[in-house]
Amino acid sequence: MIRELMKLAGRPGLVSLGGGMPSVESFPTRAVEEACIRALRTSSSTALQYGTTEGLPMLREHIARRLATRGWAVDPTRVLITSGSQQGLDLVGKVLLEYGARVAVEAPTYLGALQAFAPYEALSTAVPCDGDGPLPGELPDDPGLRALYLIPNFQNPTGRCIPEARRATLAAAASGLALPLIEDDPYGDLWFDEAPPPPLASYWPEGTVYLGSLSKVLAPGLRLGFLVAPPSLYPLLVQAKQAADLHSSTFVQTVVLEMLRADMLEEHLQAVRARYRQGRDAMESALREHLSGHASWSTPAGGMFFWVQAHTGVDTARLLPAAVERGVSFVPGSAFHCAPGGEDSLRLSFVTETAERIEQGVATLAGLLRSASPN
Amino acid sequence: MIRELMKLAGRPGLVSLGGGMPSVESFPTRAVEEACIRALRTSSSTALQYGTTEGLPMLREHIARRLATRGWAVDPTRVLITSGSQQGLDLVGKVLLEYGARVAVEAPTYLGALQAFAPYEALSTAVPCDGDGPLPGELPDDPGLRALYLIPNFQNPTGRCIPEARRATLAAAASGLALPLIEDDPYGDLWFDEAPPPPLASYWPEGTVYLGSLSKVLAPGLRLGFLVAPPSLYPLLVQAKQAADLHSSTFVQTVVLEMLRADMLEEHLQAVRARYRQGRDAMESALREHLSGHASWSTPAGGMFFWVQAHTGVDTARLLPAAVERGVSFVPGSAFHCAPGGEDSLRLSFVTETAERIEQGVATLAGLLRSASPN
Repeated sequence: MIRELMKLAGRPGLVSLGGGMPSVESFPTRAVEEACIRALRTSSSTALQYGTTEGLPMLREHIARRLATRGWAVDPTRVLITSGSQQGLDLVGKVLLEYGARVAVEAPTYLGALQAFAPYEALSTAVPCDGDGPLPGELPDDPGLRALYLIPNFQNPTGRCIPEARRATLAAAASGLALPLIEDDPYGDLWFDEAPPPPLASYWPEGTVYLGSLSKVLAPGLRLGFLVAPPSLYPLLVQAKQAADLHSSTFVQTVVLEMLRADMLEEHLQAVRARYRQGRDAMESALREHLSGHASWSTPAGGMFFWVQAHTGVDTARLLPAAVERGVSFVPGSAFHCAPGGEDSLRLSFVTETAERIEQGVATLAGLLRSASPN
Repeated sequence: MIRELMKLAGRPGLVSLGGGMPSVESFPTRAVEEACIRALRTSSSTALQYGTTEGLPMLREHIARRLATRGWAVDPTRVLITSGSQQGLDLVGKVLLEYGARVAVEAPTYLGALQAFAPYEALSTAVPCDGDGPLPGELPDDPGLRALYLIPNFQNPTGRCIPEARRATLAAAASGLALPLIEDDPYGDLWFDEAPPPPLASYWPEGTVYLGSLSKVLAPGLRLGFLVAPPSLYPLLVQAKQAADLHSSTFVQTVVLEMLRADMLEEHLQAVRARYRQGRDAMESALREHLSGHASWSTPAGGMFFWVQAHTGVDTARLLPAAVERGVSFVPGSAFHCAPGGEDSLRLSFVTETAERIEQGVATLAGLLRSASPN
């Protein structure tokens, strides 16, 4: 149902508050072109050839060095280059899950993860959360439970960032239960005020698979991500990756390595953060102006999304066709729940549109929400 | 064991008759660079953005048009772009296989396919073959059998090309048993004298998933392939692909599309075929000179490999360390059998090295084979 609705929301010309597509203006097109030319002129024999499944050693070193600046010392030989962090989810599913196993998730969460786990025939189970994230005392002590999947930084869809203290207690609780953590971190670099706390993996590296992405900080069309895994899982993940696609494009890896070597990332990230912060601010003031008293939300300190809970008790999925009719798209809250739930919520993205169009889109949506009767 | 042996064979400086790495000199580096610049200057908003799971529509059309020249009229909406044909194997495994199911394969065959199917916990079973391929009368009538996997053109490792008549009877037999075919065709464009017969998929499109690759004709480092599937399976494969990595790099897709539009492929393919034919000829004359009477082989009419069966009864895997010591690598025959088998065989690639080094490598190997005693 959601899939069909989202097709509707792909109609061109809409004010897109739906998908999490980074703004095209944020892409470092010129830097990509320069990197392509350098890669092909200086490394064409490796850039166009088969490569190792693990990925280019120098790219893995760059990634480990970047993670060190986030407060986590990583051995580059534990970094595996993936075709986007979505592939990391698929590989982790392959290695950790099997028929009848269970995986614990936040509710709401990114359903693309559950979609990646689905072929391995595991069941998902929601862990109770508060505003700081999953409650460590509520982790089920269930021998069939194979992993806890979570997005600690500016979560999709809630925008929530798990505070440092909660990370420590969560990692300790998971370690106590010997419950592997799957830490999905596509948004960690997109902070507006201060960097998020160190990854949960830094608290329990032996039990955590960390998934990172370059889609949100460089460009999604490159499809390049990575994972960091403990020695107990790394060889299994490499084997799964080899079976899945041999290795990620050495050409794209070489181009990204050339971009990182040219030291453009920090400056580029500052520009992206400034742009997204403007979008966040525009959306926040529009929500305040048009929806105060009719809905509630928390202001995200990074990432791409507001999570809005309507007070009217309306099923937001039922509002989507009318919203699209009036020129705005969003994602209904039920799209982020594996069981029924979230019907009164919606996710709004502030990274695709200009401040002006965000204001216009929120105003239109607010009109619909305010006038909707509960169903 | 084979994995460890192959690490040995990766030692630099060896005469590599092992891996199927296309010669670096065959890469269209200049055309890739021009295509990158065009892609980024004219299509950066799509080339760097998220794309649809199915792939770029114009790239799918180009691929369908190319398949039409092979004698198979393909609807472009049935083409799915993949991250190399290895990913096609993984997706087909996800959709067709499950715990306890069986998949029929040629023996010997490409074990990377079995590695891709392994996570879905299916068992493989070998179909009896003769010099023309699998014997249609020997396809098992087994309700647990989910697919027949085969490589009809210049098979890896045997180099065998299934003749037209056998294709027709095989497709009819599979259709009679309602047994889906997985037709893996990475080498079909690498013919030396005449193009191979039309794909098996053209005989039974409703029951065949066809896997294609651009690795062997453009460059493996791009990691771009495709599959063509019948309407009954296509939506399931798209869903599996979305869960696996959302979509293949739109950047690489746009670059390849620009290359195809520039109409460079046919000319490039002619150069690649001429180069590989020289390698094949050099290997054939070296085998004749050094191994006549000690081993047997068939001369491949395309592809990348000779399959050599030693008459001495030696286990070729046991010869590999000595071969590497003397400066030559190859792949032992047992690496292509899912059950014990092929110990007296070896696969020799003629696409990586020059004619001179091929002659030198074969001479060295022949010395070892002739002096080896059966074990």
